[in-house]
Amino acid sequence: MYSFKNDYSEGTHPSILEKLLETNLEQHEGYGLDTYSEQARELIRDLVQDPSAEIAFIPGGTATNLLAIKSFLRPHEAVLSAHSGHIATHEAGAIEGTGHKILEIPSTDGKITPTGIEERVLEHHFEHMVKPKMIYISNPTELGTVYTKEEILSLREICDKYKLHFYMDGARLGSALMAESANYDLKFIHEQVDAYFIGGTKNGALLGEALVLRNNDLSDEFRYLMKQRGQLLAKGRVIGIQFLTLMQNNLLFELADYANTMATRLRNAFSESGFGFLIENDSNQLFPILDNKTIDELLKDFEFYVWQKIDEDLSAIRLITSWATPERAIQEFIDKLKELKPE
Amino acid sequence: MYSFKNDYSEGTHPSILEKLLETNLEQHEGYGLDTYSEQARELIRDLVQDPSAEIAFIPGGTATNLLAIKSFLRPHEAVLSAHSGHIATHEAGAIEGTGHKILEIPSTDGKITPTGIEERVLEHHFEHMVKPKMIYISNPTELGTVYTKEEILSLREICDKYKLHFYMDGARLGSALMAESANYDLKFIHEQVDAYFIGGTKNGALLGEALVLRNNDLSDEFRYLMKQRGQLLAKGRVIGIQFLTLMQNNLLFELADYANTMATRLRNAFSESGFGFLIENDSNQLFPILDNKTIDELLKDFEFYVWQKIDEDLSAIRLITSWATPERAIQEFIDKLKELKPE
Amino acid sequence: MYSFKNDYSEGTHPSILEKLLETNLEQHEGYGLDTYSEQARELIRDLVQDPSAEIAFIPGGTATNLLAIKSFLRPHEAVLSAHSGHIATHEAGAIEGTGHKILEIPSTDGKITPTGIEERVLEHHFEHMVKPKMIYISNPTELGTVYTKEEILSLREICDKYKLHFYMDGARLGSALMAESANYDLKFIHEQVDAYFIGGTKNGALLGEALVLRNNDLSDEFRYLMKQRGQLLAKGRVIGIQFLTLMQNNLLFELADYANTMATRLRNAFSESGFGFLIENDSNQLFPILDNKTIDELLKDFEFYVWQKIDEDLSAIRLITSWATPERAIQEFIDKLKELKPE
Amino acid sequence: MYSFKNDYSEGTHPSILEKLLETNLEQHEGYGLDTYSEQARELIRDLVQDPSAEIAFIPGGTATNLLAIKSFLRPHEAVLSAHSGHIATHEAGAIEGTGHKILEIPSTDGKITPTGIEERVLEHHFEHMVKPKMIYISNPTELGTVYTKEEILSLREICDKYKLHFYMDGARLGSALMAESANYDLKFIHEQVDAYFIGGTKNGALLGEALVLRNNDLSDEFRYLMKQRGQLLAKGRVIGIQFLTLMQNNLLFELADYANTMATRLRNAFSESGFGFLIENDSNQLFPILDNKTIDELLKDFEFYVWQKIDEDLSAIRLITSWATPERAIQEFIDKLKELKPE
Repeated sequence: MYSFKNDYSEGTHPSILEKLLETNLEQHEGYGLDTYSEQARELIRDLVQDPSAEIAFIPGGTATNLLAIKSFLRPHEAVLSAHSGHIATHEAGAIEGTGHKILEIPSTDGKITPTGIEERVLEHHFEHMVKPKMIYISNPTELGTVYTKEEILSLREICDKYKLHFYMDGARLGSALMAESANYDLKFIHEQVDAYFIGGTKNGALLGEALVLRNNDLSDEFRYLMKQRGQLLAKGRVIGIQFLTLMQNNLLFELADYANTMATRLRNAFSESGFGFLIENDSNQLFPILDNKTIDELLKDFEFYVWQKIDEDLSAIRLITSWATPERAIQEFIDKLKELKPE
Repeated sequence: MYSFKNDYSEGTHPSILEKLLETNLEQHEGYGLDTYSEQARELIRDLVQDPSAEIAFIPGGTATNLLAIKSFLRPHEAVLSAHSGHIATHEAGAIEGTGHKILEIPSTDGKITPTGIEERVLEHHFEHMVKPKMIYISNPTELGTVYTKEEILSLREICDKYKLHFYMDGARLGSALMAESANYDLKFIHEQVDAYFIGGTKNGALLGEALVLRNNDLSDEFRYLMKQRGQLLAKGRVIGIQFLTLMQNNLLFELADYANTMATRLRNAFSESGFGFLIENDSNQLFPILDNKTIDELLKDFEFYVWQKIDEDLSAIRLITSWATPERAIQEFIDKLKELKPE
Repeated sequence: MYSFKNDYSEGTHPSILEKLLETNLEQHEGYGLDTYSEQARELIRDLVQDPSAEIAFIPGGTATNLLAIKSFLRPHEAVLSAHSGHIATHEAGAIEGTGHKILEIPSTDGKITPTGIEERVLEHHFEHMVKPKMIYISNPTELGTVYTKEEILSLREICDKYKLHFYMDGARLGSALMAESANYDLKFIHEQVDAYFIGGTKNGALLGEALVLRNNDLSDEFRYLMKQRGQLLAKGRVIGIQFLTLMQNNLLFELADYANTMATRLRNAFSESGFGFLIENDSNQLFPILDNKTIDELLKDFEFYVWQKIDEDLSAIRLITSWATPERAIQEFIDKLKELKPE
Repeated sequence: MYSFKNDYSEGTHPSILEKLLETNLEQHEGYGLDTYSEQARELIRDLVQDPSAEIAFIPGGTATNLLAIKSFLRPHEAVLSAHSGHIATHEAGAIEGTGHKILEIPSTDGKITPTGIEERVLEHHFEHMVKPKMIYISNPTELGTVYTKEEILSLREICDKYKLHFYMDGARLGSALMAESANYDLKFIHEQVDAYFIGGTKNGALLGEALVLRNNDLSDEFRYLMKQRGQLLAKGRVIGIQFLTLMQNNLLFELADYANTMATRLRNAFSESGFGFLIENDSNQLFPILDNKTIDELLKDFEFYVWQKIDEDLSAIRLITSWATPERAIQEFIDKLKELKPE
């Protein structure tokens, strides 16, 4: 039974396993100082046209977030986030575990705004309150929405106004960049935010995220921080080789584009069958609103999460596609849907 | 030029890559709840004959140590370790980073003793000093020595006397168990210590350590702790599949045994050439003392660390073998040595 | 110009200075083990009729909160609080600084409810989210409201249902207990909550809070925690003598009662002049809503905070009375008010 | 029975209580922003001739140390200290509790040296080890020895060489400055170290230490840190008034000088009776070596600590004098000693 529960259900893109196999018995330096990690870093630097960017490969997303935030902030400084932000809700207190408060600010469909930021910054005006010093956004957000160019520019502006670091969680950054609504590329992201990560785990790697630190004030002695939090893998090549493969021939973006395309097919099918959506978005996750009977029928053949009850009859479900979703599974799902709800 | 610098220079045992390939497109639960992780856990439980043992797969050794120690101790409690202990010296303050003091106690060739423990416990008798609550040993130690059965029993005894948790860092546990001086098996370890980890990274895995929590008082809600420290990989199967492979058909122990055998060949060659050792040991690392001229000659053909200056003429070097060290490299090294120092 | 800004503007009740003077040259044990601290503890134990209660004297309220919460929780556990809760908003991230998340739940006039608690507990059902393990309430709340007996019993019930610790910040506990709406005494509080503190600083002491740990599971080795956080004063007698004085002859409650009485006089005067209140309450702070012109006039003769803008014409102000507020200042304020707004 | 156990057994100098009484009913700003705290700061700034020095009043010594060290260091940075250093041994892991490792270096009679610092700095050369970034000394040390001008200058030099912060724990700084061996004044200290505290608790105050931050890079937003660690007292005037009193008319130094003089009298009496010392020093604590019989006799009339067993017959004891030690107690002690051991 095919599962649309998430985009990390399968292993890794075959070309990654191939490269691991091909290089397997070579001897390399440990702890991320190997040739392949260095080559992968170079490819990223080329892509964003910034030879001085620092890049750290870290096993997972929560680890990356806690490392970055702990490293960027002084003890009394706080990070602003949407309530739906991964750090705010789904990291088991990882950020607080490093000593920092997350200040939740209003959001719409997972996105925060300059107004929400400014209000909170102004409210926190003296030493009895934590000092807002950083904003956290996910792009796409946890609800699959993608920030527009204009939105990112306006966040940059408010960060400059109040001297806040701008940090982007890019667990699915490939999907954001391949979305139609994202009228920008990685280089644009790089120029606007102080630090961000390019997600590997949810984009075809076995594990690993590439944290890019554009602002070199923030990267100073970062490897110490990685080691101290247990995030410097002895065989750092494992992640290096994966990102080298993903960054070559545009693979990372192709995989993301494929996932988005599969999501769009599903989205179109729902629309054609007359269903609406909890959230309008165009990345690799979708939240159609269905009647419970249709949901029950679909669950007989596919796995996915029932996301939110709308009323007695209707619920929103969540479907996620990935680089590994077979076209066949998409087609079967659509066929089943059309069978249940002919247009 | 072959490197004897460490046992994590190569990738992974081919059967692991094979299994990754074979299972690659299967869909599995995330975060270590997949079938393979569960099967690997069962194999470990069978081996130690303890169906209630809790087992957590964690990406690396420092991460495992900091998770375990943070989880086992209350804020004012401390862990006792040798100065050469990995946590004390080579983890960039990872343990202190979680809020806990490491109390260093005397050691010989990396091993601590009940006397050293008892003296420190008695010295720390009131609330102006941290409270010793746990001992940390590495087996083999960072200097390659292996604790004997009797030594482990005596540490257990002192831990019982003072209600200390007994924790073993097993980054190279396979090598310890396959050493002649280890007159015991994994089940014995399991019965004597409260928690320990079976090292994967240095024993043929790409990454990953298996933390075994025998004492169930210590394992309560451990997955929360893993998540909070960013150590719960989304594709937990990656480590699960590796340990499943390593635990099947005794592979983990065979690889360790092979590494030890290669080290013994080198050790014998040094002895036969009349060289002594900084430390007497029988695991997969050795510390022969050579004259500087011989060292320089060997460095022309092999990589290894010059470990410690002994006097003007002599230094100890460190050689580490692994599951991947080719017999050919061993033979070439020995040939070169014999050429330089005929018996 | 008399200030109604807070209840810690003056020094200390004269009888405390007298007792400090009287005992000044006596020699005593340090770190809270002196005779006077012990006597003060006994008086509290007598009052709550619990000989096994543990009592710790701590210099300030934020220190007490962070010590208690850090000590009671495991790393992944969180505390539930109103957004207006002191720990949530006005302690500069002190709780997060010890590694713990504060989960904000809905509140009305500063009070939380079993429903809000239950909803949050149920939402946090797995290891990707922090585990709610404790509730924090202030009594009176930061908005001056006082929990009723029934409310406290219902909170106790929900804590029992979900195995949550029940903790009360009593920075102004005297004022709560002396309020008419509090149909209970200190013994009742003691029996219902697991731990609470009796505020000294805001009730006539120079400094110091008495943390009472009824639940002895929570008090184990608490002095270590105090020392580790720098909260064990060498001259612990300083706080001990103050609480001894406050607990003798009911002084603490008399001072609180006086403060409440002064607040009531002001409250009545506002009512008589036709003003309403932002919040209805009966402890030692009040939040009348005035027109801006009246506010400006009052500010010519008295200091107080303009708390919240209501509309173009109206704002709520905050007035706080204390054990030290002279009846004369109250009378002058009332006279001025009546002059501005004759009934 | 008079106790020579420590210098915080009594209350406070009478002029401090007088000043507290005199100012008691005045209303003042909270949290250290009152007039008296500001005046006290000015007096300290005048004394060290540095108008830009930042000064924070903190309730106790451990609190001051943990605040300073936490504030000055990034997460992976460590502080160097003697094993006898208060932070290393007698603060219940307060520093590690904030996340930082203390690296112990060799010391003689409690003093560390540039050589010991340099060796440790050079040893810690890469990201698998914490980065030494700060030195901690106590002056006088925990063993009563006082750093000389030359020693302090040489420590400054090594700090400059390796860009280390230089921090001095001055719990008994008055006693150090009044010692004959200290050929310098407070201004010299101020110019050489980056931060230090002037101890109040052990020099006649009820509580409180004055942390002086000369290096303004280290003082940025320090009040946030104080609040976050629960060290910003609501009635900050309590410490401000004490330091104002102590800094006026040289009182702090007079009290320290008196304590030193009393210690010298005792020291001379021991010498005259033919006893030697465990440690040669000239501050307000002394460590004479006595035969056990003499110790037992003295303990019948006085309280003090038996510090260290020397052999079967001899032990070192510790005596501490203070501003409050009556001359009469000194005389009685000397009389008893002479009676036991006529010259």
